[in-house]
Amino acid sequence: MTDKIKVLAFAGSLRAGSYNKALVRAAVEVAPPTMTIETYDLEGIPLYNSDLDDNLPLKVVEFKQKLRAANALLIATPEYNYSLSGVLKNAIDWASRPPQGNPLEGKPVAIMSASIGKFGGARAQYHLRQIFVFLDMYPINRPEVMLSDAQNNVDEKGNLTNPQTRQLISQLLESLAAWTLRLQTKSPQQ
Amino acid sequence: MTDKIKVLAFAGSLRAGSYNKALVRAAVEVAPPTMTIETYDLEGIPLYNSDLDDNLPLKVVEFKQKLRAANALLIATPEYNYSLSGVLKNAIDWASRPPQGNPLEGKPVAIMSASIGKFGGARAQYHLRQIFVFLDMYPINRPEVMLSDAQNNVDEKGNLTNPQTRQLISQLLESLAAWTLRLQTKSPQQ
Amino acid sequence: MTDKIKVLAFAGSLRAGSYNKALVRAAVEVAPPTMTIETYDLEGIPLYNSDLDDNLPLKVVEFKQKLRAANALLIATPEYNYSLSGVLKNAIDWASRPPQGNPLEGKPVAIMSASIGKFGGARAQYHLRQIFVFLDMYPINRPEVMLSDAQNNVDEKGNLTNPQTRQLISQLLESLAAWTLRLQTKSPQQ
Amino acid sequence: MTDKIKVLAFAGSLRAGSYNKALVRAAVEVAPPTMTIETYDLEGIPLYNSDLDDNLPLKVVEFKQKLRAANALLIATPEYNYSLSGVLKNAIDWASRPPQGNPLEGKPVAIMSASIGKFGGARAQYHLRQIFVFLDMYPINRPEVMLSDAQNNVDEKGNLTNPQTRQLISQLLESLAAWTLRLQTKSPQQ
Repeated sequence: MTDKIKVLAFAGSLRAGSYNKALVRAAVEVAPPTMTIETYDLEGIPLYNSDLDDNLPLKVVEFKQKLRAANALLIATPEYNYSLSGVLKNAIDWASRPPQGNPLEGKPVAIMSASIGKFGGARAQYHLRQIFVFLDMYPINRPEVMLSDAQNNVDEKGNLTNPQTRQLISQLLESLAAWTLRLQTKSPQQ
Repeated sequence: MTDKIKVLAFAGSLRAGSYNKALVRAAVEVAPPTMTIETYDLEGIPLYNSDLDDNLPLKVVEFKQKLRAANALLIATPEYNYSLSGVLKNAIDWASRPPQGNPLEGKPVAIMSASIGKFGGARAQYHLRQIFVFLDMYPINRPEVMLSDAQNNVDEKGNLTNPQTRQLISQLLESLAAWTLRLQTKSPQQ
Repeated sequence: MTDKIKVLAFAGSLRAGSYNKALVRAAVEVAPPTMTIETYDLEGIPLYNSDLDDNLPLKVVEFKQKLRAANALLIATPEYNYSLSGVLKNAIDWASRPPQGNPLEGKPVAIMSASIGKFGGARAQYHLRQIFVFLDMYPINRPEVMLSDAQNNVDEKGNLTNPQTRQLISQLLESLAAWTLRLQTKSPQQ
Repeated sequence: MTDKIKVLAFAGSLRAGSYNKALVRAAVEVAPPTMTIETYDLEGIPLYNSDLDDNLPLKVVEFKQKLRAANALLIATPEYNYSLSGVLKNAIDWASRPPQGNPLEGKPVAIMSASIGKFGGARAQYHLRQIFVFLDMYPINRPEVMLSDAQNNVDEKGNLTNPQTRQLISQLLESLAAWTLRLQTKSPQQ
């Protein structure tokens, strides 16, 4: 018997009706049976100030513990001003800081994005990938989940109504599961 | 007689001893006589949440007024995780949002960065430049002010002690002044 | 009477039926009366080798002369592998090298791109913009001309059949013309 | 007994005395015993033209065969104009094209760069990493080998004389070897 892959998922938006939160909810619904997805809300993480490094806010302590306990991450980012949201970047900045180590290091990760424009948040994803280089994280390349015209693909209750994107998220999670197992396996030569 | 160019300057860090705040202070000291620099502290701008768009926090209202009143901007950004700080991105996200218009649009802007590493925050600057494309802002290209090894170039009182960087900041401001005037001038053919 | 703005336009593809060449041809057709567009073909520029810097290929000499004589540039780039084409980058590498100066420096420039995918070459454009920083070139920000699904928007003769994109190119050229004049004008204060 | 890891290495410069070719030569010298490195010269790959896709130049056929036979890649790129060289991008454009498949897909890869400036080609490396996303390649994150001030760290015979960089290249190859084995191993659950 094999343990399930534990994924921590979060969206880089605080808005109640966030399209990226809708992507995360859809991911929970279509997750493969080999995976459990825990959703985390970034609400309550304060703005980063390294003067607080020795006195870490409790919400940040919790976030870092959740990250550490996960086998893989699933991040949904809005695209604001051709980059990821400040809210998401701020959470990453906290998580990466020295007190209690960097729980992001070495983690497999998958990205999704939703935007009201026609490029589905692509520009935010490439900035995020450069951030992963510093953090020594391992993003999967495909499929790229970029939901354009989000306002017409998420209903009033915040459910993703676009079946192609649901299918794509399902593929993304299958790919993340395979990637996570591949990276966990010890090579016989090592 | 000509009016002085009004520059609003801010650093993307909340830390009291921030190296990027030191760059801003040095800029105030070496500003050319044709320019006045007002420094702004991002402390107090909350995390962005578009649910608040109709009820803008007072600190954001103030920030947007300061931006609108400026002829040009001077931004000093830390590099965290190979990108600009979440604190800076969050302030830009607020400033760019619809209520009361986008005061960043069309603004001439100069960038500085300081980091403890050897690349002086270069990676943060290129992400910031992509953000300026969306915002229709006009950054100057040269000189690029990127202070490496910042912990050895700023003293305990937060003063920039590196004379080459002070000189470079002086050139940056001269360049920003010339660029601002160039963009303000109406073409005779128009 | 005012001289017309001289624009040099080229596409980063050597293919006869190139969609980006189609964008350039459309630009010639919709150019405003204040502008003349000369089209240049990159065919014949060899691969860059700095061992040849002292013995510049004639085609490169010609390209640099054309660039120098232009008041502004119009570049159409394919997106290959999420970046600009090697063909275009190679031409820029030659143009920027020391012998006979860098004729790209300080030039106003507008970008277009066409791709068979759904993002219209956006990723290539942002890489190109970073290149412009080094070259001290002055790109316009808007409109962004990115033709998706190019194979269904260019006919067999290589004509752009999409009226919205023709309109957008017309706006791009109006914007480039205004930008070029704005940068040419000497400020009264200088 | 285990087969050695076959690495194909190439530099994105055609210049005889290329600093990036010097990095590749140093890599051959410090390669771990578990690895064989074959060096490939991009000289002779013509400029990309998709009109030739059905009649592939022999040099391109050879390059694609070499890529296919390799277990992993080692790429040394110059930084020209804040991006990778046109010569390198052009070789990648050919390699990625449909005829005879894309031999780059799924390959583990390590990057090095050398430049005469102070940032060691960093900007070229991040553009290259975005290209790898499209190609579904798997770059290692660390160490980042970026040789600044290359003209003072490579001797007249083209040998890398900087011991720290030789050490870093050795670590890069150890890391690439471990990464390649990790990706080759089949997970027991699959």
